[in-house]
Amino acid sequence: MALGTQAKTSTAGGKGADIGVYGLGTMGSALALNLADNGFNVAVSNREADWIAPFLDEAGPLAERLTGAESLEDFVTAIARPRSILFMIPSGAPVDAMIEAIKPLLDEGDTLIDGGNADFHDTRRRSAELEGAGLHFVGMGVSGGEAGARTGPSMMVGGSDHSWQQFQPMAEAIAARFDGSPCVAHLGPDGAGHFVKTVHNGIEYADMQMIAEVYGLLRDAGGQGAVEIGNLFAEWQKGPLSSYLIEVSAAALLSVDTQTGTPMVDVIRDQAGQKGTGRWTLIEALKMGQSANTIEAAVGARGWSSEKAVRVKAEPLLPEAVQDAALPEPSDLELALLAGRIIGHAQGFRILSAASEEFDWGLDLARISEIWRAGCIIRSALLDEFADAFRGELPGGHLILAPAMRKRLEESIPALRRVVAAGALLGVALPALSAALAWYDSMRRARGTANMIQAQRDFFGAHGFERDGEEGKFHGTWNPLP
Amino acid sequence: MALGTQAKTSTAGGKGADIGVYGLGTMGSALALNLADNGFNVAVSNREADWIAPFLDEAGPLAERLTGAESLEDFVTAIARPRSILFMIPSGAPVDAMIEAIKPLLDEGDTLIDGGNADFHDTRRRSAELEGAGLHFVGMGVSGGEAGARTGPSMMVGGSDHSWQQFQPMAEAIAARFDGSPCVAHLGPDGAGHFVKTVHNGIEYADMQMIAEVYGLLRDAGGQGAVEIGNLFAEWQKGPLSSYLIEVSAAALLSVDTQTGTPMVDVIRDQAGQKGTGRWTLIEALKMGQSANTIEAAVGARGWSSEKAVRVKAEPLLPEAVQDAALPEPSDLELALLAGRIIGHAQGFRILSAASEEFDWGLDLARISEIWRAGCIIRSALLDEFADAFRGELPGGHLILAPAMRKRLEESIPALRRVVAAGALLGVALPALSAALAWYDSMRRARGTANMIQAQRDFFGAHGFERDGEEGKFHGTWNPLP
Repeated sequence: MALGTQAKTSTAGGKGADIGVYGLGTMGSALALNLADNGFNVAVSNREADWIAPFLDEAGPLAERLTGAESLEDFVTAIARPRSILFMIPSGAPVDAMIEAIKPLLDEGDTLIDGGNADFHDTRRRSAELEGAGLHFVGMGVSGGEAGARTGPSMMVGGSDHSWQQFQPMAEAIAARFDGSPCVAHLGPDGAGHFVKTVHNGIEYADMQMIAEVYGLLRDAGGQGAVEIGNLFAEWQKGPLSSYLIEVSAAALLSVDTQTGTPMVDVIRDQAGQKGTGRWTLIEALKMGQSANTIEAAVGARGWSSEKAVRVKAEPLLPEAVQDAALPEPSDLELALLAGRIIGHAQGFRILSAASEEFDWGLDLARISEIWRAGCIIRSALLDEFADAFRGELPGGHLILAPAMRKRLEESIPALRRVVAAGALLGVALPALSAALAWYDSMRRARGTANMIQAQRDFFGAHGFERDGEEGKFHGTWNPLP
Repeated sequence: MALGTQAKTSTAGGKGADIGVYGLGTMGSALALNLADNGFNVAVSNREADWIAPFLDEAGPLAERLTGAESLEDFVTAIARPRSILFMIPSGAPVDAMIEAIKPLLDEGDTLIDGGNADFHDTRRRSAELEGAGLHFVGMGVSGGEAGARTGPSMMVGGSDHSWQQFQPMAEAIAARFDGSPCVAHLGPDGAGHFVKTVHNGIEYADMQMIAEVYGLLRDAGGQGAVEIGNLFAEWQKGPLSSYLIEVSAAALLSVDTQTGTPMVDVIRDQAGQKGTGRWTLIEALKMGQSANTIEAAVGARGWSSEKAVRVKAEPLLPEAVQDAALPEPSDLELALLAGRIIGHAQGFRILSAASEEFDWGLDLARISEIWRAGCIIRSALLDEFADAFRGELPGGHLILAPAMRKRLEESIPALRRVVAAGALLGVALPALSAALAWYDSMRRARGTANMIQAQRDFFGAHGFERDGEEGKFHGTWNPLP
């Protein structure tokens, strides 16, 4: 083992650091500081070695628990065995390259933790590859952004029990807390943590989209300005919609652009970016025969927003053809959003159930709800109710069938109906809210309309169908039109 | 080359058969007979050799143009060079196995044609692999079911010019015809044909689903029986909705179950199957950053229909919470379906555009519309209008912006609004129709609501945004709620 530059150790020298953090970008730095803040000794390193000194300088008094190492060899050597090493680097090829580089330096029983937004298939592959070498790989989803990482993120951990035993005290110390309970859990083996984080982001997409739809209804059909809408959202923050995303939306609507003096949202181009986790959620759901149409609507809406040039061209050309209708009452909008949020989460949890079965993860949906109650982007008052619902009576394993959820839906579905109808008539697009309602009305009907689909398929393709109350596959006697 | 049993040749012996058809299932048999019917000499073979004799026996007088070969060697030998060999076998691994088995028997310039519903990625891979060996591979989508294959299918052909020159006379002879023009075309290289067929099926899913939704509205909110609805659909078959799928739906609704004497559709279980092409369309669309929410809704609805046990459990538990509203007039339903059909196709064509760009296929959307006018499942009066629209003025390359389509939408969007609103209030799920409207209202608005999404993303994740009318990426000055 070629030793490079001398490790710049402060106090951790003796028995070695509790953990190593590789990657001193926004998230890595914040997590390293959070760990040091909680009394752990942390070895840190970075691909560009010249980031290390400024990071240690800015760490102030926390620097005494931080050990900077310029070479990978020094970094690994500085960590106590069995090692826990957290990668906070860009996902994809860089993670594979890092694993290749660090593998020869590790000892049996060491654990690599990937804290990026990895594709869980990659995590499964990496876990399997390292297992052969006596090494452990943990895929960990981290939510909460930079502020969360520094002061308390929500963390979704996959991997082996061995790794969790090592990492647990640190993870629980740095995590967000809800009523004293840390928002981190070991959810299952290999890709479980990263998959749960992917679905978390899918739910986040849907929730953000539904809020934007209500904003659009008030702005485009109601003629309301950002401040008026922001004040309404701020009001909702005191009720059942209370959540980080409503808080953020209200605060954003009330923030003013220093350059123009107008509301921030009015100077922002209506063209949304995305980094892929929403899309991944959908692709995985589709592969498992699942469909989460609120998340689909949110991913779709971001895609359509990027076709700005077409929309500018289309506006003067396409007929509005709006119909008479009243703008929904604020209380209806609030309840519609509540129904939409419950349905968006229910769809996300359905995907988690399906994946848990497919990959034999044994996911605990109540526990997942609990660790989402604080620290992460979708934290909301509802998540505590979801956790209770998953621990209680749950017909068919479906969140919306839990007694408390049925009560919530009873008070909110009428409003969702009126809001979706108003959007349709007034010409305001409500893709996620209308998708939520369509799913609800599909799932609550014992006899749907797929008999018509099966009739068509058997008519033109002899695909066969089942008869109600009989076993086996049948073909129809189909007569052409006279 | 080891010669097995003697080829059972009828008249094609001299110069060799014009084409070989391997696989005598429903579709393969029908295409072989169609080819023979059109004067071509066809060598046929099958994995189970004992299917061959019965097939030739049943071919009657056409048997004189058919050459049965029990061994692969005899089959290949019986075909004139350069050979065209059509595989009509299950897609996936069987195709790869067949290629491996037949490759050593082929000569440079020979073409293998896969007429199954293959994943176009496989087709691209196979094309590339065979190209190295001087062989050609054609991926061909075939639509129209058994009846279409026997009397005139619509065929979407990918592959090299060399292969097309060989196959074209046969393809054009056996294809469906619209006003004398054959419904087959060479659409592009490698996977182009199979991809276009995949999207054809996606559009088919959406169209079937929207018809089922209107059926559901009339049945569940209108209390109408199958015969009443069937008569209405039969009426629509004479107007702008005229299409194979409306014809099939009307005929299916009017067909009576011989076992019970009740309408066929009333004894069929409301649980729809799917074979994957709808799902493939969505996954490919997502990978290209596209979203076709009418197809998503249709795929989703089939998935939810399969959760029958949950729906039965849910019906007595979940609140209906329906609101007062009138059942839409039949003329509104007809126009809503027309708008939905235009939008469903527009979304399918958008995916084709994106794929054409991604894979450099140079797809001709007008030509695709033309070959879908007859022979295939989605053939309809509208496809002729789409072909004209693609050949005329087309702002932004978007079907819905063509002048004739704008006129159609002007007369039909008001009805779609009223129908979606009624469905929402009356508690009848209209996932595809409401998705169509939400997309329409998203695409026709120059300034959408993604500025809200970007504000949220920059607020919690510092993702940055663009400002209207300025270059570059910006961050906001965000203030927390007081």
